[in-house]
This record gives sequence, C-alpha cells and structure tokens, in this order.
Amino acid sequence: MREARKGMLLVISGPSGAGKGTLYNRVLSADGSMTFSVSYTTRAPRPGEVEGRDYCFVTEEQFLEMLGKDGFLEHADVHGHMYGTPRQPVLDALEKGRSVMLDIDPQGALQVMEKMPGCVSVFILPPSFGELRRRLEGRGTETREEIERRLHNARGEVALKDRYQYLVVNDDLEVAYQTLQGIVNAEKQRSCRYFPVVEE
Amino acid sequence: MREARKGMLLVISGPSGAGKGTLYNRVLSADGSMTFSVSYTTRAPRPGEVEGRDYCFVTEEQFLEMLGKDGFLEHADVHGHMYGTPRQPVLDALEKGRSVMLDIDPQGALQVMEKMPGCVSVFILPPSFGELRRRLEGRGTETREEIERRLHNARGEVALKDRYQYLVVNDDLEVAYQTLQGIVNAEKQRSCRYFPVVEE
Repeated sequence: MREARKGMLLVISGPSGAGKGTLYNRVLSADGSMTFSVSYTTRAPRPGEVEGRDYCFVTEEQFLEMLGKDGFLEHADVHGHMYGTPRQPVLDALEKGRSVMLDIDPQGALQVMEKMPGCVSVFILPPSFGELRRRLEGRGTETREEIERRLHNARGEVALKDRYQYLVVNDDLEVAYQTLQGIVNAEKQRSCRYFPVVEE
Repeated sequence: MREARKGMLLVISGPSGAGKGTLYNRVLSADGSMTFSVSYTTRAPRPGEVEGRDYCFVTEEQFLEMLGKDGFLEHADVHGHMYGTPRQPVLDALEKGRSVMLDIDPQGALQVMEKMPGCVSVFILPPSFGELRRRLEGRGTETREEIERRLHNARGEVALKDRYQYLVVNDDLEVAYQTLQGIVNAEKQRSCRYFPVVEE
C-alpha cells in the first residue's frame, strides 16, 4: 500500500491544572512524527522547568522585539505575563510533513484557529472546579493569590469550550489519554491529510 | 460528571467488495446507541439477505411512489437498480439522540453530505483493484458481467474519495475496524455533540 500523509497542527488548551501537560507529553512520547512547539514567555521559570524544552524564557524587551518583527503565530498576556508561539518553526515543521503540537491559552488558541483554519483544536476540561483547586494546590508552585486568579480565569476559559472542535474531560488520566490519542489518530485519517493510493 | 451527547449521522461508502458491511456491522455490534438505516431497493435479494434487515425490497412502482412523496433523504440508480434512504426514520432517530449509520453509494453519499452538513463521512478503500476483484469473485453472488461493471464503477468511486471527511483502507480487517471505530469514538468528543458540565 503506497500512501502519503501531511502533518497536522494540533492546538491543545484548557485551564491551568486540567492536566494538559501530562496528557500531551504521553501523546508526544507515543508519536515520533509530532513536534512540540516551545512557546516564548516573559514569566520566570517554575522549579524543574528547562529553558528550550518547557519554554524559551525571554525578557519583555526581547519579546516585544520579536513581536515587532511579526515573529509570533499568536501571542497573549496571561496572568500578567506574555506568551507567544514562534511562527517560523511551526511553519517549517508543517512544510516538512511533521505534526506540531501547541499548548496555548484560550486567547492564543482562538488566534491560531483563525489564522490556521486547518488546525485541530482540543480543549481539556477538569471534572469539577473543586478538583481543579485541589490539583493547583497540590502542585505547590503558585501562591494562594495566583491560585485564586487561575481558578477565576478557569471559569472564563471553560465558558469558551465550544469554540474548540473536541472536548476531553480529564477525570481518569488513562481514559483521557486514550481519548486524546484517539482524536489524534482519527484526524490522521482525514482526506485532507491522508493520501492512500489504490494500486492495480 | 454530568454530560449529554447528541447522536451523529455516519455515512459509510466505498466500492462493492471493499468490505464496508463487515466493518460497520462490528461498529454496530459494539455501539448500542447506533442504529443502522435500512435502505429501500428495487434490486432482488441476494442469497442470505433478509427483508427489513439488509434492505426493504420494493417494486419500482412502490419506490417511485415514495420518491414522489419526498420520502427519501437520498436516492440513486446504481447498476440499473434504485436505492434510497427513507427520510423519516433517520430524522426520528437523530431527534431522539441516537446515532444513525448509512451504508450508501457515492451518488447518495454526496446528496446526504449536502443536505446534512453535520454528518460524518467515511470512505472505505480496498488496498488494490486486484484485491477488489478477488473479493468480488470470492463472494460468488454476482455474474461475471456484474463483477466487471462493479470494478469499472469502483474506479470512478475511488476517484471521488476526497469528498469524504475520512479515509480507511481495508487491507487488514482488524486494523481497518480499529481505525473506523476510532473515528466514531473521536467524533463523539466533538463539541457540537458532546456537552460535559464542569461541576462545582
């Protein structure tokens, strides 16, 4: 069977604490054809975060310079910090037939959906706001004030869930992973990305 | 977790001998919320086919009377016989939140995609035209002339494959089944059909 495939641009979003990172890291581990797009941010690294793997940590001045050169596919101000997806690496990877995964906040996700209408968008939901609070508190990386701000924002983000193509509730991690992986696998069968040749 | 779901209209098509029937019967067995839409046809029953399960077998006069009353969601003339999907049972099932599966030829599939833009369309491909011939010959239910006509039509049908949203190659039956079931499962997570409620 001869066949060819084009890569997809996969946009994953959801409130802080919904468990996006754990989910998409499993998808990335399982799929060698998918690249993670590392965002730029002006916020400080959290304990354990690695420059160039989790984020490219830059100053506000550096961020604004890149923004001035139209260097971002999307950018947003979240919780008082700037975040952006560098444009060129994403376009280069797609051009080569690779898939690209973006982990971005809803502001950025809506920008990407508009600019890249062929993208696949998935919103990860927590089972409840109470559980979201427990996860954020358990993480122990944010101050009480930051947690309250994230919980407040989560309500606004969840209200926009229907702007995304797919919804996944992360209640049981294994079920949520299988569901997300299933969406990625199904999207690979789209006739706009999959080109099988029926031979003689 | 409170959630609600809407049913989907699933259109399956593909050349005779591609193995659609075997595939979708497994999906139907596995999914209690999905109903098979039984088509009307003016062709004679094949050995083993059951009235009301495989088709509603009617005379050309009966078919035309129903057509005159706008009783079909789609209808087509295939290999000299009339086929049609009765409109009301499909709309009734969807109204009740059930999913409905249609097994229809490409002429009919294109009509349904236009009339029901929210439908999910899947085209089943054989791995090669040689294999398609072997399967049709192995079935032993068509004359040599009918087989040649089906093979000729298959080329025209395969040329229209990109009108469908998803493509599945039925080379290995188990792989093809998992792929089709995966598409159905992923489509259940669409925000237009899946309504989870994030509780407090």
